[in-house]
Amino acid sequence: AHPLIDTAPAARLDHARGQSLPDWIALRSGRIPFFPDGVAHPASREEVRQLLDYAREHGVHLIPYGGGTSVTGHVNVVADYPTLTVSLARMDRLVQLDGESGLATFQAGVNGPALEARLAEHGFTLGHYPQSFEYSTLGGWAATRSSGQFSLGYGRIERLVAGMRVETPRGEMVLPPFPASAAGPDLKEVFLGSEGRLGIITEVTVRVTRRPETEYCGGCFFPAFGAGMAAVRELVRRRLLMLRLATAAETGLGLVLSGRPDLVRWLSRYLRLRGVGEERCLLVYAAAGTAKDVALARRETRRVSRRLGGVDLGAAAGGSWYRNRFFLPYLRNTLWEAGYAGDALETAVPWSRAAQLVDQLAKTLDRALNGVGERVHVFTHLSHVYPDGCSIYVTCIFRLAEDPGETLARWRALKRAASQAIVAHGGTISHQHGVGTDHREFLGAEKGPLGLEHLRETGRFFDPAGFMNPGKLF
Amino acid sequence: AHPLIDTAPAARLDHARGQSLPDWIALRSGRIPFFPDGVAHPASREEVRQLLDYAREHGVHLIPYGGGTSVTGHVNVVADYPTLTVSLARMDRLVQLDGESGLATFQAGVNGPALEARLAEHGFTLGHYPQSFEYSTLGGWAATRSSGQFSLGYGRIERLVAGMRVETPRGEMVLPPFPASAAGPDLKEVFLGSEGRLGIITEVTVRVTRRPETEYCGGCFFPAFGAGMAAVRELVRRRLLMLRLATAAETGLGLVLSGRPDLVRWLSRYLRLRGVGEERCLLVYAAAGTAKDVALARRETRRVSRRLGGVDLGAAAGGSWYRNRFFLPYLRNTLWEAGYAGDALETAVPWSRAAQLVDQLAKTLDRALNGVGERVHVFTHLSHVYPDGCSIYVTCIFRLAEDPGETLARWRALKRAASQAIVAHGGTISHQHGVGTDHREFLGAEKGPLGLEHLRETGRFFDPAGFMNPGKLF
Repeated sequence: AHPLIDTAPAARLDHARGQSLPDWIALRSGRIPFFPDGVAHPASREEVRQLLDYAREHGVHLIPYGGGTSVTGHVNVVADYPTLTVSLARMDRLVQLDGESGLATFQAGVNGPALEARLAEHGFTLGHYPQSFEYSTLGGWAATRSSGQFSLGYGRIERLVAGMRVETPRGEMVLPPFPASAAGPDLKEVFLGSEGRLGIITEVTVRVTRRPETEYCGGCFFPAFGAGMAAVRELVRRRLLMLRLATAAETGLGLVLSGRPDLVRWLSRYLRLRGVGEERCLLVYAAAGTAKDVALARRETRRVSRRLGGVDLGAAAGGSWYRNRFFLPYLRNTLWEAGYAGDALETAVPWSRAAQLVDQLAKTLDRALNGVGERVHVFTHLSHVYPDGCSIYVTCIFRLAEDPGETLARWRALKRAASQAIVAHGGTISHQHGVGTDHREFLGAEKGPLGLEHLRETGRFFDPAGFMNPGKLF
Repeated sequence: AHPLIDTAPAARLDHARGQSLPDWIALRSGRIPFFPDGVAHPASREEVRQLLDYAREHGVHLIPYGGGTSVTGHVNVVADYPTLTVSLARMDRLVQLDGESGLATFQAGVNGPALEARLAEHGFTLGHYPQSFEYSTLGGWAATRSSGQFSLGYGRIERLVAGMRVETPRGEMVLPPFPASAAGPDLKEVFLGSEGRLGIITEVTVRVTRRPETEYCGGCFFPAFGAGMAAVRELVRRRLLMLRLATAAETGLGLVLSGRPDLVRWLSRYLRLRGVGEERCLLVYAAAGTAKDVALARRETRRVSRRLGGVDLGAAAGGSWYRNRFFLPYLRNTLWEAGYAGDALETAVPWSRAAQLVDQLAKTLDRALNGVGERVHVFTHLSHVYPDGCSIYVTCIFRLAEDPGETLARWRALKRAASQAIVAHGGTISHQHGVGTDHREFLGAEKGPLGLEHLRETGRFFDPAGFMNPGKLF
């Protein structure tokens, strides 16, 4: 093999799957049909180029690998075919910092904490915090159109990426950073969300900002989900930051998980006195900037929520979410040990269809396993809001079957039912997780037959031999 | 001919050219090499489809036409070949308004005033004001990645467009509005800036907002351009709205054009007393929202500019620019009558290269006609700012030659010299006017050879016969 390629079994197993529920089932049951045949760790653009050429010449499939946190199958080997996984882990350097413009160029394999640490040395932040932040990488964020918990303030990755370098099988694409341009279609947009099908992103130039002096995270309870939705719609239009709005079911779960039953009892009494009953929904909001900015934003946020019946509890209700914000994915482990599977589905729709789709998804998922006599517990929150709509994030919890194949079948039933409901209500098939293998059959519904064919043609253009991450996206 | 096609000479002449300086030279000298052979005015998507099919079947070139305000040759017939111009003027309906989501769907031929009037009936605004606003159309804005005077507040057209319908030779593309999506590359971005090469945009869904209660426009003089640049950089990072920052030369011209020499004398004395001398540069800034929002923004803006030596004159200095903001293009007529040609060039660069490129463009253009013994008067302002950079807008004034061909040669010399300087300094070849015919030779420098080839391949995909607006963009 090529000197850059490691064929040790441990490396191959380590890079075999991501973090989706099917990946968990596979890894925990040991039923992993295919592994990569080797894993390479290039340290430079030149080495990435060598590996691309090697894979093409030897007729090997190539899978780019960032942090391995995909929850839709992006990094999986999907066919019994020689496959090379290329991890960008060693490519984590800050290449250039243009402080005057607020532009930082990193190698694409840098992960969240390393990126923020390097920027912090210079007083900057990117502000991109997907729940996978601890492991996921800048290149992975760009390749999957990632969004983060503070994207309402800093912008989704599409807005943060100013420029890129991509090694495609056909040659290198250099996309220089412009603040804006009218010079034809923006070619960055071809690679944002390309999920490794067109090449390997090797460098990304991102828009960074001065670290805020101070940050604040508060919580507010609304008497019903509708009132909460009206509030967040107004907050986003006033450029105030909301982080999440939970339905009554998810709010209730959060209170149980707090592990403080006495406190919750007192809280419930207090909220009832203030007119907020069993249908209470928790909004977590934020503010960042100078102390003055934050005070002003808090005041405005409270004013908006009070008008809609919200009871603001400030940092007492927001702080605990903030402290645990990267911890929630680990709950899946605890659930699993208790015999339950947990999975998340998500979409985004215009406001006019949001309430209906929240209801429809809850109903659809609730009865999705009726056929096999199993219950599904459904918890929903709005995780991102925009002036014209919001994302809907649904967590499903259901029992593991004795047979891993049966658990997988349950998951498939849920996935299909949810995706069909999403498409029927005009939602996107993914707001933040990407397409990968798991949403692939629904991409045509979103892009249309001509759009899908155009994407495939784009794939054939940059990768005529078709060896880049096959079976994903389109 | 097809019943929708008008072959009257007046219609053909009316739609022969846009508003670039070469267009003016052609129209005023009567030296127009090619005309469209017919002009069609479809009223529906179905009629657009019929015309596309007609053009393909008859081997006719097709040029989509909005308001005819292109300044880079988008609507020109460039070859001695049967050509049909399709004007979208009759397609100006508001198709749907989703007030809850703030999404309005218009037929693509609606012009600026008609669009804003329809939205105003419902209390909304789009807020997109290119200088061509009175004539240019929503479809034209999308096809050329237009930006407007208030884009810092409302966003460029790329951000305002949530969805589109496009009739391509290969079939219809329906791009539904999502608030955001991670489902692969965003196909809207293929058509934003496509300049009629891939099809005809028939409908556009835009993000609209409630009309602000009040608006304010103020002016502030800085002692030097560098201080003004530092101020606008801070304003944009604090999300305060600036509209334009003029160099000393352009500020001086504006004062002369005000036609109030007495007032200007008193103003100069006052500014000198406050430490602002001959190098004075005028910043025009704005604020919009509730009366309280506006008061707060004005206060913050003044605080930032005062710290950098600015002397704020409020509405006295900002109001006259605001009143004349769509009038400036008409000055070209007055200049022409006086024997001068006026033309505008523009780009955008990261902040770290902005001051240098402003200087370089002024120097380059200043001496560009030395060879023919002519002077060029150069006036510059920053017209759009972003956290990571700004646009640079340069007006050149030079003498008309006796022979229109010689005037055109002078223009070409300026265009080439400026474009070369822009590319050499890492600027985009166009921030707001698009590529058309006039920037086409420089597109490869911006997109790279592989990027350019990809654009051409995209053209071949949607328009295999190659009859859509040939000779433009790529």
